Amino acid sequence: MLGNFIYYNPTKLYFGTEVQKNLVEALGNFGKKVLLIYGGGSIKTNGIYDTVTSALKETGKEVTELPGVMPNPTLEKLLEGIKVARDCDADLILAVGGGSTIDYAKGVAASAWFEGNAWENFWLKQKEPAPDQKVIPVGSVLTLAGTGSEMNGGSVITDEANKFKVGKVFGDRLIPKFSILNPEYTFSLPKNQMVAGIFDIMSHIMEQYFSGDDDSTSDYLAEGLMRSLIASSKVAVNDPTNYEARSNIMWIATWALNTLIGKGKTQDWEVHMIAHAIGAYTHATHGHALAAISPAYYKFIMSFGLHRFVRFAKVVWEIPSEGKTDEEVATAGINALADWIKEIGAASDVETLGVTEDMLDGIASATILGGGYKKLTREDVIRILKDSFKK
Amino acid sequence: MLGNFIYYNPTKLYFGTEVQKNLVEALGNFGKKVLLIYGGGSIKTNGIYDTVTSALKETGKEVTELPGVMPNPTLEKLLEGIKVARDCDADLILAVGGGSTIDYAKGVAASAWFEGNAWENFWLKQKEPAPDQKVIPVGSVLTLAGTGSEMNGGSVITDEANKFKVGKVFGDRLIPKFSILNPEYTFSLPKNQMVAGIFDIMSHIMEQYFSGDDDSTSDYLAEGLMRSLIASSKVAVNDPTNYEARSNIMWIATWALNTLIGKGKTQDWEVHMIAHAIGAYTHATHGHALAAISPAYYKFIMSFGLHRFVRFAKVVWEIPSEGKTDEEVATAGINALADWIKEIGAASDVETLGVTEDMLDGIASATILGGGYKKLTREDVIRILKDSFKK
Repeated sequence: MLGNFIYYNPTKLYFGTEVQKNLVEALGNFGKKVLLIYGGGSIKTNGIYDTVTSALKETGKEVTELPGVMPNPTLEKLLEGIKVARDCDADLILAVGGGSTIDYAKGVAASAWFEGNAWENFWLKQKEPAPDQKVIPVGSVLTLAGTGSEMNGGSVITDEANKFKVGKVFGDRLIPKFSILNPEYTFSLPKNQMVAGIFDIMSHIMEQYFSGDDDSTSDYLAEGLMRSLIASSKVAVNDPTNYEARSNIMWIATWALNTLIGKGKTQDWEVHMIAHAIGAYTHATHGHALAAISPAYYKFIMSFGLHRFVRFAKVVWEIPSEGKTDEEVATAGINALADWIKEIGAASDVETLGVTEDMLDGIASATILGGGYKKLTREDVIRILKDSFKK
Repeated sequence: MLGNFIYYNPTKLYFGTEVQKNLVEALGNFGKKVLLIYGGGSIKTNGIYDTVTSALKETGKEVTELPGVMPNPTLEKLLEGIKVARDCDADLILAVGGGSTIDYAKGVAASAWFEGNAWENFWLKQKEPAPDQKVIPVGSVLTLAGTGSEMNGGSVITDEANKFKVGKVFGDRLIPKFSILNPEYTFSLPKNQMVAGIFDIMSHIMEQYFSGDDDSTSDYLAEGLMRSLIASSKVAVNDPTNYEARSNIMWIATWALNTLIGKGKTQDWEVHMIAHAIGAYTHATHGHALAAISPAYYKFIMSFGLHRFVRFAKVVWEIPSEGKTDEEVATAGINALADWIKEIGAASDVETLGVTEDMLDGIASATILGGGYKKLTREDVIRILKDSFKK
C-alpha cells in the first residue's frame, strides 16, 4: 500500500431479501419529506415499487415522485430534478433503480441548493459542493448490479445538446447514506443486460488492477473479486435465478468500485475512455463496448506490464506456467479472458456494437488519451479498434 | 453471499506517513476536551507522543492524559478510565497504541456514562449501550498491526480477580470515528511481537474462512488477504523497515477483522477459544499461541471440510494437485501453513509457550467448545493439544 490516502465509506449496506424491513429501519434516520426517484416504471410491474411505497407509508413520509430517469441521465432531466427537489424541500432522495438512477439522484442532491446556474457554475466549475452548501442525503434501493454507484460518490450527467458527458466524484457527503441490495431484484433483468453488467464489473476491477509495479494488497483483493466474479458469472448465465451466484455478483459490483481496490495504486481506465467514445458513435451498451475491445487493448499493452499479465493469467485464470515463456503465459491469460467473454455472451467484437471502419478516425479522436502501463496515442487507439473486429 | 446482513463501517482511515496533518484534520470534527489514552510510554521515546501532542496543541484541545494501559486491559483500569473520562467530560477519546489500547478506549467510551455499576449491569448484562445512553466518540492512532480494533466495535476487558475475560462487540456508535495508520510506526516493534501480530491476522482470516460449504465472495476476498499477508510477511521478517511489506500487513490487519470477509458466512473461531485457554495457563503471547495449535487443529478438522482445505492448498499455497487425492492436497496445504509458521518464526509447538502435559486437562476444561466444520468435544481439544507438542 503505497502513498498516503484516506478510505472513508460510510454507506450502510443492507444486503438480502428483507427490503421493506430494512427500508423502514433506514428511513427512520431522515426527515418527513422524501423525493422518490426511479426510471422507466419497470419497478411498478415487478413489485419493487409496492414494497418501497409500503415502507414509506409505514414510516409516515410525505412522498414526491420523480419517475422517468433514463440511462445516461440528461442535463434537461437534472434541471427538472433540481426544481422538484427544491419545490418539495426534500429531506431525503430515495433512488430506486440501477446506476443511472442513483447517479442522477446524487446529481440532484448535490446541486439542488446551489445558488445560481448549477450546470455552468457548479458542474462545470466546482469539484464538489462547498462545505456551507446544503446537500440532500441520498439513499438507494438497487435493482441492477454493475456500476457500484450504491457505495460511491460518483455521478454522470450528459449534456445532450452539446454531446458532452460530465462525470463527477463528489465527496463524502454525496455517498449514499444507505443502500439496500436485494439480489432477487436482479433476477428479472434481461440476460443481455445482466451480462453487460457483469463485464462492466470485471472491467472496473481490471482498470484498477492493470497498473503499477509494486506488491499491493489492493491487487490481491482485486484478484479475489475477479475469481469470484468469473465463477458466479458462469452459474448466472445458465441459471439467472441462482441466488448464490446473483448475490455474489451484486456484492462484487459494490466492492469493485467503492474505492477499496484502488487504494494506494495508480490506475488505468483507458478501456473506459475508448468505450465511451464508441458509445458516442454507436449507442452500444457500455458493458458490451468494454468487452469488445478489452482483449485487443490488453494484448496491445501487455509487453509494458508483462509481470502483471503473467500474474493475471496464473492467479485469475489458473494458467499453468511450466515450460512457457512469460509472454506465452500472459497471452494465454488474455485468451482466457476472451474465451470467457464469449462464454457469458458479452460482445466479442466491435462489429456487434455497430462500429464500422469509417468510424475509427472519429472514435479515436473522441477518445481521451491516457492509460496505465502504456500511454496511448491516437494511432494506438485505431490499432486496438482494428484488432477488435471479427477475426 | 447468503443470508441477510448489514455492512456498516464508517471509520475514516487515514493511511500513510502524514500523521500530524491527518490528526489535525480529524480532530477538527470534535469538541475541545480530549482524553488521550496510551500504554507503557514507548510512544514517548519513539516520537509518536510528540506528533500527537503537536496536533492536539495545533487544534487547541484541552488534553487529559491516561497512560498505562496494559496488554489485556483490566477491570480495575477500566474503572479508573471511567472516572477520568467523567471527570474531564471528554468530547473525544484518542487512543494511541495497539489493539489493547484501542479496545480499552472503546470500553471506557461505552461505559463512562452508564448510570450504575458499569461492570455488573452493563458489561455483564447488556449487549451494547442503550440508544439514549451517551457514549464518547473514539479515534485512534495505531502503532501495531494485528487486532483490527482500529475499524471495528470490539473490546476485551479482563476481570483479573476472577480470571475472567469479557469480550464485547459494541454497535455502530463505538466503531472508531477515525483511525490513523502509519506503517512506519510499526517499524520499531520487536520481531517477536511483529510475528505474533502477523499470525494473529492470519488466524483472524482462517477463522472466518474455514466454515461453510457455499460459494461466497467473502472467501475469495479472504484468499486474497492471505496471499498478500504471506508474501509481505516473508519480506518483513527479513527486512522489518520495508515500507511496502509493513504497509500491506497493516492494511490486511484492518480488513481481516472489520467484518467484511465474514459477511454472509458462518465462522469458526475455535482456534481462538483454545488459545485463550492456553493464555490463562501460560501467559503465552496470543499470536504465538494461535500459531502453535493451528496446524494440529486444522489437520484434526480437515476431513469435515475437505473441499475448503483443498481450495486453501491450491489457491493460498499454490499446491499442485495433479495425481494427488484431495486428502493429499489438503494435507500439503496445512503442511505449507506449518512451514510458513516456522519460516516467519512464530511458535511451532505448545512447549515453546510453556504448556506442559499436566496442564492439558485444565486447558481443555477452560476452552469454550464450538467450532466450524467440526464441533469439538473436550477430548478433541486434548487430542489437538497433544498433537501440538514437538514432534
